[in-house]
Amino acid sequence: MKHCLTLLLLCISFQFSAQTDEENVKNIYSNSLTNGMSYLWLDHLSNQIGGRLSGSLNAEKAVEYTKAEFEKLGLDKVWLQPVMVPRWVRGAPEFAYIETSPGMTTNVNICALGGSIATRAGGLKAKVIEVKGLEELKTLGEDKIKGKIVFFNRPMQADLISTFDAYGGCVDQRYAGAMEAAKFGAAGVIVRSMNLRLDDFPHTGSMSYGDLPNSKRIPSAAISTNDAELLSGMLALDKNINFFFSQNCKQLDDVQSYNVIGEITGSEFPNEIIVVGGHLDSWDLGDGSHDDGAGVVQSMDVLRLLKESGIKPKRTIRAVLFMNEENGLRGGNKYAEVAKSKNEKHVFALESDAGGFTPRGFSFDCSDVMFAKIESWKPLFKPYLIHYFEQGGSGADIGPLKDNNIVLAGLRPDSQRYFDHHHAANDMFEHVNKRELELGAASMTALIYLMDKYGTETISNTSKLKD
Amino acid sequence: MKHCLTLLLLCISFQFSAQTDEENVKNIYSNSLTNGMSYLWLDHLSNQIGGRLSGSLNAEKAVEYTKAEFEKLGLDKVWLQPVMVPRWVRGAPEFAYIETSPGMTTNVNICALGGSIATRAGGLKAKVIEVKGLEELKTLGEDKIKGKIVFFNRPMQADLISTFDAYGGCVDQRYAGAMEAAKFGAAGVIVRSMNLRLDDFPHTGSMSYGDLPNSKRIPSAAISTNDAELLSGMLALDKNINFFFSQNCKQLDDVQSYNVIGEITGSEFPNEIIVVGGHLDSWDLGDGSHDDGAGVVQSMDVLRLLKESGIKPKRTIRAVLFMNEENGLRGGNKYAEVAKSKNEKHVFALESDAGGFTPRGFSFDCSDVMFAKIESWKPLFKPYLIHYFEQGGSGADIGPLKDNNIVLAGLRPDSQRYFDHHHAANDMFEHVNKRELELGAASMTALIYLMDKYGTETISNTSKLKD
Repeated sequence: MKHCLTLLLLCISFQFSAQTDEENVKNIYSNSLTNGMSYLWLDHLSNQIGGRLSGSLNAEKAVEYTKAEFEKLGLDKVWLQPVMVPRWVRGAPEFAYIETSPGMTTNVNICALGGSIATRAGGLKAKVIEVKGLEELKTLGEDKIKGKIVFFNRPMQADLISTFDAYGGCVDQRYAGAMEAAKFGAAGVIVRSMNLRLDDFPHTGSMSYGDLPNSKRIPSAAISTNDAELLSGMLALDKNINFFFSQNCKQLDDVQSYNVIGEITGSEFPNEIIVVGGHLDSWDLGDGSHDDGAGVVQSMDVLRLLKESGIKPKRTIRAVLFMNEENGLRGGNKYAEVAKSKNEKHVFALESDAGGFTPRGFSFDCSDVMFAKIESWKPLFKPYLIHYFEQGGSGADIGPLKDNNIVLAGLRPDSQRYFDHHHAANDMFEHVNKRELELGAASMTALIYLMDKYGTETISNTSKLKD
Repeated sequence: MKHCLTLLLLCISFQFSAQTDEENVKNIYSNSLTNGMSYLWLDHLSNQIGGRLSGSLNAEKAVEYTKAEFEKLGLDKVWLQPVMVPRWVRGAPEFAYIETSPGMTTNVNICALGGSIATRAGGLKAKVIEVKGLEELKTLGEDKIKGKIVFFNRPMQADLISTFDAYGGCVDQRYAGAMEAAKFGAAGVIVRSMNLRLDDFPHTGSMSYGDLPNSKRIPSAAISTNDAELLSGMLALDKNINFFFSQNCKQLDDVQSYNVIGEITGSEFPNEIIVVGGHLDSWDLGDGSHDDGAGVVQSMDVLRLLKESGIKPKRTIRAVLFMNEENGLRGGNKYAEVAKSKNEKHVFALESDAGGFTPRGFSFDCSDVMFAKIESWKPLFKPYLIHYFEQGGSGADIGPLKDNNIVLAGLRPDSQRYFDHHHAANDMFEHVNKRELELGAASMTALIYLMDKYGTETISNTSKLKD
C-alpha cells in the first residue's frame, strides 16, 4: 500500500513536469547528435594518443589531454586525483608456434596476459594438454599436467544473448588458469581468447597468480580463436605435438598516476554528488576506443551536454575518468577511499564501460522502490529506442562507492560486437560509429538530468518528495 | 467491450501454450546462434558472387546459387518465378573534378545514379548552382539554372533517431532532382550522397526522369559527403568554379530473370500462405551484404530454422527472394500479380530489407485488433532484447500484396550504421556481424512461428480463434 502511494505520488509529480522533461531530453539528444564532442575527443584519444596502459607514457598523455579538455568547458572545478598504479609492460612482441615434428612449425597468434611473467629467455617449448576449464585440471592431476603447457579451450557460449554473460562464463580460465595449472606443475598456460568470433586476434586481459610465490609462477598467454581451433584440431590428430612460446613482459614498480575529474557544482544541494564515469586506461594492443575511450568521452560530454542544453543541476555532477580499471582498479578504489575520508555524500553513480555501441538502456543496482521510481521515466526514453531498464550490476570503477544509499547504474549498449574487439589489437577508432557513441552520451546525460532533478530519495526512506 | 473480450480470450489462449512457445522460441534462437547458415550463405553471396544488379551475370549466379541451396534443405517445393527486369549498366568508372581556374583541378568521388543517362562523350563541364532541395529550384527559375549543373546538397537530418526517417526526408533530391532540374534547363545534376557520415564513398540509388522525353534528360550523379562539403565550401568562396563529370552508364533492353522461391507446405491450412523475403538484387558498387544479402539469407534460414527446431507449420511458409527491388520492383510486382491470378490467400508477409544489424523488433501494417494480438507475443521476445513492436510500414517487395486481409511486417534492425553502407562500395561482407545477422534470422523465424500457430484471424472478423 505504501509503495502504491509512492508510485501514485511519483506519477503525479512526473505528470506535472512531463512536458519540460520531454523537451529537455529532446534537446540533449539533438545536441549530442548534431553538436556532440564525444567523437572528436575519442578521435584524439585513440588516434593521437592510442593504447593507454596504466603507468605508460600514453596514460600520462591521456591524463593531460582530458584535463585540458575539461578546462575548456568552463566547469566549476577540474582536478587530478593522485593514485599509484601498477606498471606492467609487454616488452618485445610475443612469438609462438605449433611444432608437429622437428623443424615442422606453424606460427600462431598469441599475446601475453596482463600481469603474466615472461617465458625464460629463448622461450618455452613443451607438450600440450587441452582442457575445457579449471575443474578438469583436478581430474587430470599432476601426473598428466606436470611439465606441460595447459591449453584452456572452453569457448564463449554463443547462444547467450548478452555476450557479457558468455564472457562471465569463460573468463575464469584467463584470470585463474595459470594460478591453478601451476599448482599441478604446468610449465605454462595458453588460453583461448575471450572472443565469440573466429579470427586471428589474440585478446589480452588481466590474470592473477593469487598468493603463489614467485618461484611457482608460470607464463600465461592468450591465443586467437582461429589458432585455438587449429591447435585443438592438431592435438586431436597427435597428442605429442609441441607448443613453443616466447614472451617478454615484466611487472615494474608502481608509478604515480591520476583520476581526472571535472565538476559542475550543484546549485541547491552541492553536497549531494552524482558521478558519471569511464576508465581512462586501456590495454595496449589496440587504441582502447571501445574499452573504454567511449565511456571516457561520453562521460566528459555529459557535463558539456548539460551545459549546452541549458540545464543547471541542483546536485553536484562529477565526470570521473578512472585510472587503472584494467589491471588493478586502483583509480576506482582511490576515488571511493577519498570520498569516504571526506565524508562526501554520493547519491548516484553511472558508468559507461561496455563499448560505444548503440545504447539499449541501463542496468540499476538499487532498491525495488527506487527502481520503480526510475521505471516511471522509461516513457521519456522510448523515442530514443532506449527500452532496457533492468536491475543488475553497474560498473567496476564505481563499485567501491557502493553502500546502502547510493544508486549505481551501468549504460548497456548493444553487446553483440563488443567481444570482437575487447582487449585486442582491433579495438580501434574505426570500429566506433559516431552516432552510436553520441546516442550513448545523450542517454547518459538524460538519465543524469532526471536523477539530479528527481533525486534518489524515495518515500520509504524520507518524506522529501518535493525535490 | 468486444475488443476487451478478444484480448481476454487471446490472453487465455496464450497462457495455455506459453511454455511450449517459450521453448520453441529459445530453440530457434539457439539454433540460429550455434548452427545458423545465414552467415555462410552471405559469405558466398557476397564474396563468391558480389554485387547483383538486375540483369547482370552476378544476379543470374545468385538465382542459381540460392535455388541450389534451397534444394539442399529438403523443402516441399522450390521454384523460379520468371520476371522481366530492366538492365542498367554503369560502364567505365565515373570521373569528376572541381576546376577553380584553368588547369587547377581537384578530383572528387562520384557515381552515376541508377537509371541516369551518360554524359556526352568527353564529359560535361559547367558552372554549379547549389540548392537545398527541389522547392528551391522554382524560386531560382530558369534564368539562374539553365546550362548549369544543379548541386543538391541538403544533408540527412542527424537528430532523427531512425536513420530511415532522415533518408525519407532527403531522397527526393536523388530520385527527382534530375527530372525537376531538367525542366529549368539544367545541364546535369550532382546530389549529395544519402549518408549521415562524412566519408569518401558516393552512394548510388534509383532516380527517375518521369515522363521527360529522351531529348530533355540530363545526367545525374551522387557525390560523396566529404566532397559535397568541399564543393559547397569552394562555391562559398567562388561561385564561378566549374564542375566536370563524365559517366558512361546505359539503359539496355529488359532481360529475363527470376524470383527464387522455397516452400514448406502447410500441414493443416496449405492454402493459407505466409511469405518471408528479402531482395536478391543489389546495387553494383559493393557486394550488397547489408542491402539486401542479409534479408535474403535470413529469409532462407527461416525455413531451415523451422525444420531444425522441429516445427511443422500449419500454414504454407514461403521464402521469396525477390528480384529487382532496387531499380524497378518488378519481382515484388510479379509475385503479387501471380498470387492474384492464382487466387492465392496470403495471410502474412514479412520482409527483411533494412540491413543485417542487431534486430530491435518489427513494424506491422495491420488493424488495431490484430496489432493487439501481436503485442501479446511481446513477452516471448523480451529475453532476446526484441522490444520494438510498432504499427507502421513493412517492405517494398511485399507491398504489392497489400489488401484488407493480409498482415504485413518489416524486420527493424538497429538503423544507426545502415546508411554508412547503403548503395555504396563499402556495403561489404566485413561490415556484417555474424551474431547480429543470426539474431535477425531467429527473430524472423520466431515471428513466423507464432503467426503460423496463432493465425492472423481476430474475433472481429471471425470466430475461428481456436487455431
